[in-house]
Amino acid sequence: MKILVSNDDGIYAEGIFTLVKELSKIAKVFVVAPDRERSATAHAITMHKPLRAEKVEIFGPEVTAFKINGTPSDCVKLALDALLEEPPDFVISGINRGPNLGTDVIYSGTVSAAIEAAIYGIPAIAASVTAYEEISFEYPAEFIRKLCGSIKNKEFPKDSLLNVNIPNLEREKIKGIMITHLGTRKYKNCFHKRCDPRGKDYFWLAGEVIEDLLDIDSDVWAVKNGYISITPIHFDLTKYELIDTLKTWDIDY
Amino acid sequence: MKILVSNDDGIYAEGIFTLVKELSKIAKVFVVAPDRERSATAHAITMHKPLRAEKVEIFGPEVTAFKINGTPSDCVKLALDALLEEPPDFVISGINRGPNLGTDVIYSGTVSAAIEAAIYGIPAIAASVTAYEEISFEYPAEFIRKLCGSIKNKEFPKDSLLNVNIPNLEREKIKGIMITHLGTRKYKNCFHKRCDPRGKDYFWLAGEVIEDLLDIDSDVWAVKNGYISITPIHFDLTKYELIDTLKTWDIDY
Repeated sequence: MKILVSNDDGIYAEGIFTLVKELSKIAKVFVVAPDRERSATAHAITMHKPLRAEKVEIFGPEVTAFKINGTPSDCVKLALDALLEEPPDFVISGINRGPNLGTDVIYSGTVSAAIEAAIYGIPAIAASVTAYEEISFEYPAEFIRKLCGSIKNKEFPKDSLLNVNIPNLEREKIKGIMITHLGTRKYKNCFHKRCDPRGKDYFWLAGEVIEDLLDIDSDVWAVKNGYISITPIHFDLTKYELIDTLKTWDIDY
Repeated sequence: MKILVSNDDGIYAEGIFTLVKELSKIAKVFVVAPDRERSATAHAITMHKPLRAEKVEIFGPEVTAFKINGTPSDCVKLALDALLEEPPDFVISGINRGPNLGTDVIYSGTVSAAIEAAIYGIPAIAASVTAYEEISFEYPAEFIRKLCGSIKNKEFPKDSLLNVNIPNLEREKIKGIMITHLGTRKYKNCFHKRCDPRGKDYFWLAGEVIEDLLDIDSDVWAVKNGYISITPIHFDLTKYELIDTLKTWDIDY
């Protein structure tokens, strides 16, 4: 099995290091990841300047790894189009420090790397641990390795990918797996307005998270209640149910 | 009527200028847009540095306008959370120079600004002209103004927005309006590998567009054949049809 790994926390993050070590037990692993943190880059791609691919050897002699001066999407595109000789069996993005849940998925660099793979028709998983501090990546990495094993013989649905969020709990405290939909997770009061040392205003994104915890089939509910959440996602943003409604609107041109 | 306008070509682009002038005929217009081109930023948001909002007066005394050192999503977030006193009736993003069609929509800064508005529950339209050179924005701007008029009394569907692509044709040559789904529009052979003046390799994103022109209900087909395309889109990436399938996969943890 050949697995391409990327992320948005950057190639030197602990989450990708632990994941690569674990996946190396079952596959030939390639790493193509950003040279630094690229969180909240969403699906940005670099068109107006060149990209550099620099070989790094931090993962040991068995793992071919490149760091890129670009976004997570750039990394996956560049890997699949230019750096890898043949397509991998899986693309895994992560393991991200912090959740990628609900509405926030649209901003996620971690998920965008996996979406990029799905656009190329390659089975992909985005993986996150739902905490920012005192994270243990050991069990999450083990879970992702086992997940690759369980699904490698399934017919992975075309144009889709899996978004996996793992609670930051000891293995014994995890209650199970839930297959979920993306829930509601937004921010409120988003900006702090402050004054700089020269007397000019500036704004800094802040904000309190609003989660809908009543939606018990959602990813938000699942991780809050100790379950690993697996959400099938896709990249076709069409709202099909509305097409017929719009046709009745009688829009003039 | 109050309309917030943003874009990803930057506040000094011709497309936003023509649009603002036209919308001012029917509404009080506010502009909050990036200080420079921000194409292909997708839904990136700025979390790790401050944002500045600088007032600009290029649109005349009736239009309150700010340029922001951020992405299109930043602009809409900042406008709705901090700069505007009350929510607008519409958020319009554009008019973009170049198409936002099919698979490419996921990379679009223009569409992301409109999605941001939809997340806030405000009716939103992303508008693009499907050409890069010799564009006339006059008729497209007029069409968007009329579209706001036609839909202002409709029940605009929650969590959805309209992605509008207008062919770069004279008014008389436009064949009509099609309500479409997002089609297939991808790139092939994406990177040029080159050598810099110091002998080091670099990569530059290029690539030939692959369009599926057989899908006659798609946005790609519509604009290619002289129609204005209107696609209803949303930001819930869940692939609902797969939830039941995944439940049968019997994944271990």
